[in-house]
Amino acid sequence: MTVQFSKRCQRTRPSAIRALFKKCVDPEIISLGGGSPAKEGFPLEEIRDITKHIIDEKTVDMLIYGLTPGYKPLREAYLKWIVEPKGVKATLDNVICFTGSGQGIDLTCEILLDEGDVVFVESPTFLGTLNVLNKRGVKLVPIPTDEHGLIVEELEKKAKELHPKMLYTIPAFQNPAGVTIPTDRRKRIAELAAEYDFIVLEDDPYGDVRFRGEKVPPIKLFDKADKVIMMNSFSKTLAPGIRVGACVAPVEIAQKLEVIKQGCDTHSSTLPQAIVAEFLNRGLMEGHLKKIAPIYAERHDALVAGIRKYFPEGCKFVEAEGGMFIWLKLPNHMDAKALAEKCIEQYKVAFVHGEPFCVNPEDGFDYIRLNFSGTPADKITIACERIGKAIKEEMAK
Amino acid sequence: MTVQFSKRCQRTRPSAIRALFKKCVDPEIISLGGGSPAKEGFPLEEIRDITKHIIDEKTVDMLIYGLTPGYKPLREAYLKWIVEPKGVKATLDNVICFTGSGQGIDLTCEILLDEGDVVFVESPTFLGTLNVLNKRGVKLVPIPTDEHGLIVEELEKKAKELHPKMLYTIPAFQNPAGVTIPTDRRKRIAELAAEYDFIVLEDDPYGDVRFRGEKVPPIKLFDKADKVIMMNSFSKTLAPGIRVGACVAPVEIAQKLEVIKQGCDTHSSTLPQAIVAEFLNRGLMEGHLKKIAPIYAERHDALVAGIRKYFPEGCKFVEAEGGMFIWLKLPNHMDAKALAEKCIEQYKVAFVHGEPFCVNPEDGFDYIRLNFSGTPADKITIACERIGKAIKEEMAK
Repeated sequence: MTVQFSKRCQRTRPSAIRALFKKCVDPEIISLGGGSPAKEGFPLEEIRDITKHIIDEKTVDMLIYGLTPGYKPLREAYLKWIVEPKGVKATLDNVICFTGSGQGIDLTCEILLDEGDVVFVESPTFLGTLNVLNKRGVKLVPIPTDEHGLIVEELEKKAKELHPKMLYTIPAFQNPAGVTIPTDRRKRIAELAAEYDFIVLEDDPYGDVRFRGEKVPPIKLFDKADKVIMMNSFSKTLAPGIRVGACVAPVEIAQKLEVIKQGCDTHSSTLPQAIVAEFLNRGLMEGHLKKIAPIYAERHDALVAGIRKYFPEGCKFVEAEGGMFIWLKLPNHMDAKALAEKCIEQYKVAFVHGEPFCVNPEDGFDYIRLNFSGTPADKITIACERIGKAIKEEMAK
Repeated sequence: MTVQFSKRCQRTRPSAIRALFKKCVDPEIISLGGGSPAKEGFPLEEIRDITKHIIDEKTVDMLIYGLTPGYKPLREAYLKWIVEPKGVKATLDNVICFTGSGQGIDLTCEILLDEGDVVFVESPTFLGTLNVLNKRGVKLVPIPTDEHGLIVEELEKKAKELHPKMLYTIPAFQNPAGVTIPTDRRKRIAELAAEYDFIVLEDDPYGDVRFRGEKVPPIKLFDKADKVIMMNSFSKTLAPGIRVGACVAPVEIAQKLEVIKQGCDTHSSTLPQAIVAEFLNRGLMEGHLKKIAPIYAERHDALVAGIRKYFPEGCKFVEAEGGMFIWLKLPNHMDAKALAEKCIEQYKVAFVHGEPFCVNPEDGFDYIRLNFSGTPADKITIACERIGKAIKEEMAK
């Protein structure tokens, strides 16, 4: 049979990361391709204990239908342990929980965006979000970034000209660029949203995974005009397989997110939400983040050292102070896609090439994204040796 | 602030069931409103034991990113324990798991349907699906049903005339009508799908919750032309709060479902999927279904007896052989919505009125949907007494 698929389906490209994920079943392959947290940092004992406690004490609550905006103890714990410590004022009416923050992003797009709407994204940005935006046929406008993330003067210039409906930004340890927007720029983004009347989708899965430098307040803190949705995830701070994310949104938006989520999955699975709530309410998150920071720092530093040691001159990148990624520009306008293919087949090392992260694919032509969080330091060093060799071979051609 | 929401958002109405769910926090209210399974039938001990076993034995597997089409042991167990016993031939390439079958329905619509496409539904049909169809601006065509469900002659007549893209059907213990399509009609539906080139979305969450009569094979069994998606759920057979559903789809469709799901939530939570897989693999489902059948039968019979005893003459309904619902036509063209409002406020008894289940709301004007699965028999009797009194009062006006 041949099916006529919808326009949205035809516009949706398979995720380059998920495709790589499938290829990496070969245990010989060292993958710097995904966005996985360090599994060596998972709080295994705590999660085992919490899961058993909940399934014993709240069995029926885990099994009956739950409320669409999320398991109430999780919404409360998210406010108390994640939102309020950042200085953000919010109530339960602002909070919706999701099957990972990815669902939150998709549903935010669903309630706000029509075909042809103008949406601003950082250049480069997370390919998963580009996919859900492209699916909807919006007009994507990349806003230039530097080593401090989104350039607010460029944002203002484009906002004045193009009247965007929404800005999508990853303000901390950006995916893929690894950079973090400083406080003054964040404040300015909130001001510009008010001035030019657009919604800011502040996607912050990585902000709390910081191993160096000082904390920066969320854009939401400066949101006097109620224009900012702060989207958080427990995939990077706790574990991705539980699929729990949550947001603080303006009430009007939170209400629409709830209604649209009813039709999407009624509600997210209750047990994973309850596990996260209990983890937070036992006061374990702060200590956990302190415990994992050195693991991330060690891996980041191994990647930086490996690049410096094995990569040729002319590779450009910015060190990160948290998160999971380094975004590297190859020398000599090298074809990153061809390099990535060669590396996985010939050198058994995987990473994602730059094009899928860019609205205009050519902007990512000679970039690669290297993940350091998911791989032990010694393997990162071996991966760098392999990639460095492949780059030098390409240069010699 | 005032936000300009998307067309899809503007077209989406809050679920009447979810709205009722919120109202029913008052413990005095007896609710025949939802679609909840009997919580007294939950296999609590087994689920506790399985959950502890999994979280001990497979902790890391539960926490890392999973594959988008679902946790592999669940996909395998679904084939072995649910699909194959129905005689349906399928492989892993046909199987996608979801956060409840509701997500499966939504994503099927997402990959197949564009604004203006013709979609056939039974009249009446599940309001949640009407919502996700209306959201997409499709042209909905209600196909008449009788006490044996979808009338296939009507289906053929309309298919010839209107060239539908898809037929959505709930073949067993239909929601809301409670009726089941017999084998000959099922076979004919598959033939018509081949002949008139449309996809059949066979939504079968209730089929295995049978307490009387003989099993009927799924429409998928007769799907020689690869036109049928069989959607199953563990919400009704096991528990809704775990949010696990799965489908067998033509390979081409399964591939698109996977790609579209990547952008929606990457994958569903792993732990709930693993719990269902283990439940199946321990061979517990068959015994569990046998154990819950008498509970459902008792409640169904209490509802039927209560209607006969307390409702006035002129109420029309068909008894069910499984599932959760009875669909009742009120006498004297009575306004069911007004009755439902009066009942919840004045008589502390909840149910859903018929309009949200109908493409043309007036077709449901004098119908009510009564759920029997979620409420103990003695309370169902009390609920019937209350509703009967309210109907008689309305008649006397």
